[in-house]
Amino acid sequence: MHSPKDIVDTMMAKDYFSQWLGLQILEIKKGSCKLQMTVRKEMLNGHGTAHGGITYSFADSALGFASNSHGQKSVSVETSISHIKPLVEHDIIIAEAIEESCSNKIGIYTVKVYKASDPCIVALFKGTVYRTSKIW
Amino acid sequence: MHSPKDIVDTMMAKDYFSQWLGLQILEIKKGSCKLQMTVRKEMLNGHGTAHGGITYSFADSALGFASNSHGQKSVSVETSISHIKPLVEHDIIIAEAIEESCSNKIGIYTVKVYKASDPCIVALFKGTVYRTSKIW
Amino acid sequence: MHSPKDIVDTMMAKDYFSQWLGLQILEIKKGSCKLQMTVRKEMLNGHGTAHGGITYSFADSALGFASNSHGQKSVSVETSISHIKPLVEHDIIIAEAIEESCSNKIGIYTVKVYKASDPCIVALFKGTVYRTSKIW
Amino acid sequence: MHSPKDIVDTMMAKDYFSQWLGLQILEIKKGSCKLQMTVRKEMLNGHGTAHGGITYSFADSALGFASNSHGQKSVSVETSISHIKPLVEHDIIIAEAIEESCSNKIGIYTVKVYKASDPCIVALFKGTVYRTSKIW
Repeated sequence: MHSPKDIVDTMMAKDYFSQWLGLQILEIKKGSCKLQMTVRKEMLNGHGTAHGGITYSFADSALGFASNSHGQKSVSVETSISHIKPLVEHDIIIAEAIEESCSNKIGIYTVKVYKASDPCIVALFKGTVYRTSKIW
Repeated sequence: MHSPKDIVDTMMAKDYFSQWLGLQILEIKKGSCKLQMTVRKEMLNGHGTAHGGITYSFADSALGFASNSHGQKSVSVETSISHIKPLVEHDIIIAEAIEESCSNKIGIYTVKVYKASDPCIVALFKGTVYRTSKIW
Repeated sequence: MHSPKDIVDTMMAKDYFSQWLGLQILEIKKGSCKLQMTVRKEMLNGHGTAHGGITYSFADSALGFASNSHGQKSVSVETSISHIKPLVEHDIIIAEAIEESCSNKIGIYTVKVYKASDPCIVALFKGTVYRTSKIW
Repeated sequence: MHSPKDIVDTMMAKDYFSQWLGLQILEIKKGSCKLQMTVRKEMLNGHGTAHGGITYSFADSALGFASNSHGQKSVSVETSISHIKPLVEHDIIIAEAIEESCSNKIGIYTVKVYKASDPCIVALFKGTVYRTSKIW
């Protein structure tokens, strides 16, 4: 059985999009994790703020790491995100994924995204994963 | 009053993330649009398939273009996406955004994502936007 | 193998809450269905309009019937609903459930809710079900 | 300015569906509340468990009370619920609504539903409300 850190290192080595996002792993435990990244110019949308897909992708990577850390390969099935406050270039943001439930087949997680400088959340993400029978 | 195409051209010129995704606009009308993109290696996750954030970002751009095409600046508030089938490198995908409702303040859209080679959807996205009083 | 109608009749006989809602089944096919009900006084909330839970329950029953009609017992895992227009007492409403995808384990459905007198939707529902290995 | 308790009492007096559900208000503060109810036979579905609409309605009432407690009339726009564990007749359940964000126009809340006898959640609800300019 691999440790949560080993599993996430294995995932990150091939996760080219999380690499592009510049994700840093601050913490990883079974069922939870904490990530950090910085909003760059190529992440902005036509309003001059971070594209909704950036915040989503950040939270979805957190979901992926938290849910796969148990050792079973898990894929996200259904996710939702509420965008609360806009982000701009250079904002440093943190994602915290927490497991709300853990059954054999289905897992539910929430991910809170906030600026490193302010505990108020900028986005709230909820994700449901399907746990396959494949092992990392 | 600008045309939907003018508005989307203005948005795209500053939408650096949609540019990075390589979005092509196949069609744009008031309240709807159709986009195309190709999955590239830097868009993959640790499972070797397209990161969920890529499909989401693609659908969210479609939501942004469709909802802003009326002329009022609109921002997505709440969105959800069901991931149905995995995508791999080189897959060409299409997003079709349709307006389900249109009130003064709140708009609801669905976006279907499917491969150019197969009408079966790979992801289903639902988005709610808040229409500001600012005009493009 | 039981027909979709047989399965839904079996479900309805024990579905006391759908009975309380006063659901009428207008149509049932493999993977889809169409239901009707009327908003009653005991379904209203503190704003004097139909409680959000009424529209949700109506759509969720439609999801249940459509997804179980294949013969495998299926339970809803994750659902979302956008409330677009308020409903009042005596409104006659219709729910149409459509299957967007059908895999072995996971099914995705959308349900549109509208008044019998107006094709504009009042609510848009998306649901994900998990198909168990139990058969009706 | 009315107190949160006054507002919820005014809402409950006309909220016939929450009365039918048998909601008891355990706690109400600005932006949050805690409710209790018991699953009755007429709340069951064709699987013999609580209809998904019951848990949703319970959580949606909690959202309504928590979001209206600020004094502005607020209506739910977009909500999602993850159903995690089934409930049966006689189960006593608790809903806790928490405000995740509070802006002038849009509010985001999560509601956790669990049995009185077990802190593990049976459902996780996320809701977005639109705050009107009308005052209770």
